[in-house]
Amino acid sequence: MTSRDAAIRWLSDEYYEQNGEQFDVLENPPSGLEFSRLVHISRPVLIKGSRIPASTLWSDEYLIDSMGSRAISIAVTPNGLADAVTRGPDGRLYFVEPHVEKMTMAEFLSTISSGSASGSSDVCYLQSQNGNLYSSNDFEEGRGSESEFEPLRRDVPSDIPWCTEALGKSPDAVNLWIGDSRSTTSIHSDPYENVYTVVRGAKYFTLLPPTEGWCLNERTYPHATYTRCPSTSRLTLVPSTGTDEIRWSSVANPHIPGVLPRGAHPIHVTVLAGQSLYLPPGWWHHVRQSGGTTIALNWWYDTEMRGMSWVTLSFLRGIGEVPPGNDSVEEDAKQSQVIITS
Amino acid sequence: MTSRDAAIRWLSDEYYEQNGEQFDVLENPPSGLEFSRLVHISRPVLIKGSRIPASTLWSDEYLIDSMGSRAISIAVTPNGLADAVTRGPDGRLYFVEPHVEKMTMAEFLSTISSGSASGSSDVCYLQSQNGNLYSSNDFEEGRGSESEFEPLRRDVPSDIPWCTEALGKSPDAVNLWIGDSRSTTSIHSDPYENVYTVVRGAKYFTLLPPTEGWCLNERTYPHATYTRCPSTSRLTLVPSTGTDEIRWSSVANPHIPGVLPRGAHPIHVTVLAGQSLYLPPGWWHHVRQSGGTTIALNWWYDTEMRGMSWVTLSFLRGIGEVPPGNDSVEEDAKQSQVIITS
Repeated sequence: MTSRDAAIRWLSDEYYEQNGEQFDVLENPPSGLEFSRLVHISRPVLIKGSRIPASTLWSDEYLIDSMGSRAISIAVTPNGLADAVTRGPDGRLYFVEPHVEKMTMAEFLSTISSGSASGSSDVCYLQSQNGNLYSSNDFEEGRGSESEFEPLRRDVPSDIPWCTEALGKSPDAVNLWIGDSRSTTSIHSDPYENVYTVVRGAKYFTLLPPTEGWCLNERTYPHATYTRCPSTSRLTLVPSTGTDEIRWSSVANPHIPGVLPRGAHPIHVTVLAGQSLYLPPGWWHHVRQSGGTTIALNWWYDTEMRGMSWVTLSFLRGIGEVPPGNDSVEEDAKQSQVIITS
Repeated sequence: MTSRDAAIRWLSDEYYEQNGEQFDVLENPPSGLEFSRLVHISRPVLIKGSRIPASTLWSDEYLIDSMGSRAISIAVTPNGLADAVTRGPDGRLYFVEPHVEKMTMAEFLSTISSGSASGSSDVCYLQSQNGNLYSSNDFEEGRGSESEFEPLRRDVPSDIPWCTEALGKSPDAVNLWIGDSRSTTSIHSDPYENVYTVVRGAKYFTLLPPTEGWCLNERTYPHATYTRCPSTSRLTLVPSTGTDEIRWSSVANPHIPGVLPRGAHPIHVTVLAGQSLYLPPGWWHHVRQSGGTTIALNWWYDTEMRGMSWVTLSFLRGIGEVPPGNDSVEEDAKQSQVIITS
């Protein structure tokens, strides 16, 4: 065990002893000041009573009518795993990004309700997460940004007032997510303050604090992308060339009891329509969603870089000390239990 | 070097790289929300524009008139070092607490202006720091506390509104400090949010972040107290019996260039009358004061125990891993350069 590992285990135990598995539940959104205090504590909070026009307006018909013939970018995978570690046809493990296809909202929503894309078993997920509704440019005077979802912007506030007030800045990105139970998001952490609001359906989060990242066995994996084969029309995992290896958790199903090592204390939070989850920077999250159509929005705000928080997160990530995911036989054997193969 | 030491050095370097030696200066007190953001950053802030009745009212005459014949508790030492590591007559190093004597405000202030107590060379310092103006009981309904300085309470707000609002709680203790340039406070850290306001004179702070505590060579020292010898009337260092050893820094003069090791980045802050210093939990501070009479007030608020901050502070303190201050010949030689002998 390296000195960093020993220190991280100490912090991990001590953090759990001090904080337990508790998370706050607010019956109504906080004031800016109340939220600022919660940001300092930096633990997840379930916030009820979200009131966003989208929540009452966004039926399938409304979304289809509003968006018309506009082309939107949809992530397509054979298995519902966009941005996840997956075994390739060569037997090696890859970090695989989805194939992105353009389609209309009507075409996209039909894949969700019918359970298939174009008669295939492919899984579609609207998860472009590039500030697809608003990006930082929208908050700079005299600038603006293009959005594939321009007609839906009127139903989504560009910021969360209590969050903007608490942090003293505008969001860096606002995203729309639409999918069904076939799509899951593999466990990862983001360097952002995140408010995640469910508009329809439910999201099931499995959370670990930044101190328990060591339970997720991060490894480095070669990069690949799903590509649709022109002759068979089937999605194929194509290794990338000239792309850096991606550091990612080797644990695919942290929500299943017994998968995580002793020492991990996962927190399970269900976020229903009209509720928001405050997810602080560095918190690990695995996300599943309900069947039917689940619609969510998220607001990412830049994290405070001054002070101790950012430095501690860097320490806990142990940057630059991650072994390759394909090298160890023992590790591979272990991973085969937890990695979903394509 | 232990694994904890190696981790602490990494955090120390990274914290300095990220934060430098900069501290914010506010021209006016912040709002509750603004201060909440500063609490999250947890770096010192110099805040100008403090307006407290004491600042304009507290001449020596006013203090003497208001306090009359009331007895107040004054720390008396032969050297101005109350609560500091000092060499005893047996050649050993002790953590020494001051002798406490009761006198009137008039008697006390005369020792400051004449530079001596009762014709001796003893140094007097009003530094009882036990919530001598207000304590937590004062903020509980139906309760209250006794104060030696009852007549002065009217001139001191029991809390700092923007701090109370930011932290969502009342102070744990409010203290009055009166002394002169002969008294200094040895470097230490407190587990409190602290707002320190100068009413008259100036305070000179030497600060180190919690990450640089390793530069201060904490050791454990036997406890002693100054006692006035009944026959000679002189203050004598008397080792305590049945008292735990005290953990304290072995560096006596961190404000002198060259005393601290490479890797320490002391921040020097002068706080003048009408200014306040926000001193976050765990920040190390050595305090000197101007000649004449320096009067200050401080408000201690309990620290947030939830989240990562408290756990990180505990880690940086490395609790339970401190060697005795009198054991090592090499260490003693080193300390003799930095410890002021009695």
